[in-house]
Amino acid sequence: MSERAERAERKRPTGDGGPSASGSDFLQLNADRAPTGGKADWLARQLRLAIADGRLRVNSRLPPTRVLAVELRVSRGVVIEAYRRLTEEGHVEGRRRGGTVVVAAPFGPTPPEGTRPHRAPPRPTDTADRSRPGTLFSGAPGADVFDALRAAPARVDFAPGRPDLAAFPRTAWLRAERAVLAGLSADDLGYGDPRGTPQLRHAVAGWLRHTRGLRVEPDEVMIVAGTAQALTLLHPALRADGIDGVAVEDPGSLGTRQHLSNGGLATPPVAVDDEGVRVDALRATAARAVLLTPAHQFPTGVVTSGERRRALLDWARDGGLILEDDYDAEHRYDRPPVPALRALLADHVCYLGSVSKLLAPALRIGWMVPPPRYREALTEAKRFTDLGNSVLPQLVLARLIETGELERHLRLLRGRHSRRRDAMIDALAEHLPGATVHGAAAGLHLTVTYAPDVPDTDLAAAALAHGVKCQPLSWHRQLPGPPGLVLGYAAAPPGVIADGVAALGAALRELS
Amino acid sequence: MSERAERAERKRPTGDGGPSASGSDFLQLNADRAPTGGKADWLARQLRLAIADGRLRVNSRLPPTRVLAVELRVSRGVVIEAYRRLTEEGHVEGRRRGGTVVVAAPFGPTPPEGTRPHRAPPRPTDTADRSRPGTLFSGAPGADVFDALRAAPARVDFAPGRPDLAAFPRTAWLRAERAVLAGLSADDLGYGDPRGTPQLRHAVAGWLRHTRGLRVEPDEVMIVAGTAQALTLLHPALRADGIDGVAVEDPGSLGTRQHLSNGGLATPPVAVDDEGVRVDALRATAARAVLLTPAHQFPTGVVTSGERRRALLDWARDGGLILEDDYDAEHRYDRPPVPALRALLADHVCYLGSVSKLLAPALRIGWMVPPPRYREALTEAKRFTDLGNSVLPQLVLARLIETGELERHLRLLRGRHSRRRDAMIDALAEHLPGATVHGAAAGLHLTVTYAPDVPDTDLAAAALAHGVKCQPLSWHRQLPGPPGLVLGYAAAPPGVIADGVAALGAALRELS
Repeated sequence: MSERAERAERKRPTGDGGPSASGSDFLQLNADRAPTGGKADWLARQLRLAIADGRLRVNSRLPPTRVLAVELRVSRGVVIEAYRRLTEEGHVEGRRRGGTVVVAAPFGPTPPEGTRPHRAPPRPTDTADRSRPGTLFSGAPGADVFDALRAAPARVDFAPGRPDLAAFPRTAWLRAERAVLAGLSADDLGYGDPRGTPQLRHAVAGWLRHTRGLRVEPDEVMIVAGTAQALTLLHPALRADGIDGVAVEDPGSLGTRQHLSNGGLATPPVAVDDEGVRVDALRATAARAVLLTPAHQFPTGVVTSGERRRALLDWARDGGLILEDDYDAEHRYDRPPVPALRALLADHVCYLGSVSKLLAPALRIGWMVPPPRYREALTEAKRFTDLGNSVLPQLVLARLIETGELERHLRLLRGRHSRRRDAMIDALAEHLPGATVHGAAAGLHLTVTYAPDVPDTDLAAAALAHGVKCQPLSWHRQLPGPPGLVLGYAAAPPGVIADGVAALGAALRELS
Repeated sequence: MSERAERAERKRPTGDGGPSASGSDFLQLNADRAPTGGKADWLARQLRLAIADGRLRVNSRLPPTRVLAVELRVSRGVVIEAYRRLTEEGHVEGRRRGGTVVVAAPFGPTPPEGTRPHRAPPRPTDTADRSRPGTLFSGAPGADVFDALRAAPARVDFAPGRPDLAAFPRTAWLRAERAVLAGLSADDLGYGDPRGTPQLRHAVAGWLRHTRGLRVEPDEVMIVAGTAQALTLLHPALRADGIDGVAVEDPGSLGTRQHLSNGGLATPPVAVDDEGVRVDALRATAARAVLLTPAHQFPTGVVTSGERRRALLDWARDGGLILEDDYDAEHRYDRPPVPALRALLADHVCYLGSVSKLLAPALRIGWMVPPPRYREALTEAKRFTDLGNSVLPQLVLARLIETGELERHLRLLRGRHSRRRDAMIDALAEHLPGATVHGAAAGLHLTVTYAPDVPDTDLAAAALAHGVKCQPLSWHRQLPGPPGLVLGYAAAPPGVIADGVAALGAALRELS
């Protein structure tokens, strides 16, 4: 934990005086019910459930390991191991003087029918006048909704998916560009390989091996203009393969779903629970392809569990295709990297990544590692789409990877982003004390859910009236579920985050 | 004419001792047949016909104006005016000591049936093994043919469409990039307007006004990844408009035709004669859209005549759509610019341009100015395709335009390219004396046609065996016509051009 975050910790009103759980009858846990040899598993699961259902609130402290071990009559190693797992998952965080604190809730299974109001997802409307902020959140979001939200004036922008762009490595970029221009041949400036320059494909293969455990050859890598383009290129290849729909996570990215629909593909929703996408529900859709964000589910932040990964791979082996959108896998704070699914099943996983969350969306550089059988069709599609990405940015990026500059930049970002995440968690605890925070172990955003009496589109509209931009969770849902907000923290400094979250709290109080 | 070209002129074997037409009975012209007040028109047409049918060969000198005026009993002004028109069209060139010399033939109408062998266009084949140079030109060209030709090893590359890439303004680019990075806001690095950055759209609007006489607002300009992408974006918009085919010039670009076919659009051919595309033949196709290269037809180099332009605009006013591919309009040598059709009929012309032939294809930056009714659909298509072009190259290009660097670069290129064109014309006169040269007034390539006894695919294959890459004219035809080669001269220095053309001559002699 950084010094700055520690200061924030000490200042936090709910800090030292905050809620703490006593170990004596802590959650009425009884370790006698745990299977022998599986006590750490059992304890981690009990704690996860307690965080999910609100018995353990964000910001509350867990009992010291020594105390809980004595209470439960288990070895201290069992408690340490359980806490370690929750830390890796991003649910709790070790703070030197503050003990082990709950920072975010796992994304729980949808509660049984009837326990909360269900809102049918609104239908798309073309008549909403998106030029007025008030109408941005009325009706279902159209294809231009992100452009419209971007264009809306606001003091604070919590739109998810943007890294800290003020940290963009301008000097390193210019230095790399100078070296690239000096070494460029005339042939490099002509029409090139539509799959990307050999230099960048080589560098990306190395980067994926190094950061994602993906052993791929440069020839397997295809450079594209971001994940949006990867999907555009995939549409005809999927259709040629007899695939007319791609199942999507629910909640799951609205932008991705709009993209697939625009390509004429059905997008049956599959519920996400605290272990990842539900494979039983996936099988029930009969879809032959699914788009997943397994390393850090968007927007819930769920990390796909080991068991669920195995079930997914079984599903794929039976003839399924997984589109693995590894959209922010590099941004992790308190846990080791989750290996990519592509590393385990090359023939059934199409891996997608980009620099949008690593350097800047404006670069429009991404990559895909498709199953071998799609390679030729994708190359042809890329040729007809644009004859290949712009070459200079490709060569500059290759150099940033090879010289280690990109990795240095990522380390810098991790530090900055984790301080901003902490600032947002603190501010949420102060200003939206009733809300539950999800997905804090990685990424560039948090998702909060709250009691279902205020529709999240109303809250987002009220927030915008208060000068704060954020996305309602319902935008990212096809299935019913509790309202919430998706809050990007990476692009705003801690002071702005505190200000913005305070405005969110005021907006929610007005509506409640 | 440059000093270097003049030296080449003096050295040329067919120079001083070359063929010259006597004025006394020059072409059996009789000015009495000319309409009063239209004598310059008449003379220009007679000379054009004589160049087209070979009575006046490339490299032959026209009679001095004073001599011809006396012979024809017309005023000297009439002859000067006729020579001036031919110069503007690129058919003749004034050379200080060499008089007025024929440099290129107009692209004549297809001769009547039966006067030369007709070859049916070959059908596409997927079985050709394109990795072996010998098979590159067997069967009809597939979608990867340009990649395969690019990958083929060769000493000399006459592939058309590449400017002199060794002249790429590296220093100016880097200087502009430094300024751009220094002035960049964090917002500039985020997700932006899919239509392009405001800076570049503003700069391109100014560039089009200045170089092409096109008065457009920045809001009408859309930045795309080259003309290939513009066509990809147009496909769904055209289909939504009930257009299922786009007529194409014949001869006309193979790449463009492949692109349209890949988008599921029919490509009925329309013959090109020495005034441009034949509007009567266009009407006969019943196509509702046509793709044209009116300023410098690819590959023939024909400049659409005034009368033909009027006929085209009439056709468009009756409900037709013109896709105006202004692919190398900036590269003209001996004639004033031809205004863009878009300037005259905004609602029926979709204008397409790019920097591929101005700076480098590798930049993948182009623009389109669509008819207003297509604007929204195209914006949506661009959003789904890639969310917009890469931003840094856009901003750098905007700066190069605004600081005048791009115009300086264009002036530099014009000088270099016109010397290379002269070197190629000279070499063709020496090594392929029986061939006819077309399209020398502008652009980056020449087209030569020759007697029909050797298929041009055989000649191109033999040339590749001699280490020279070029494209057979038949690739760019759907209708039958004489064989020929399309020869890019802009990317090779004069010495290499002479070497390459000598090898073409040797290849043709082997096959004849």
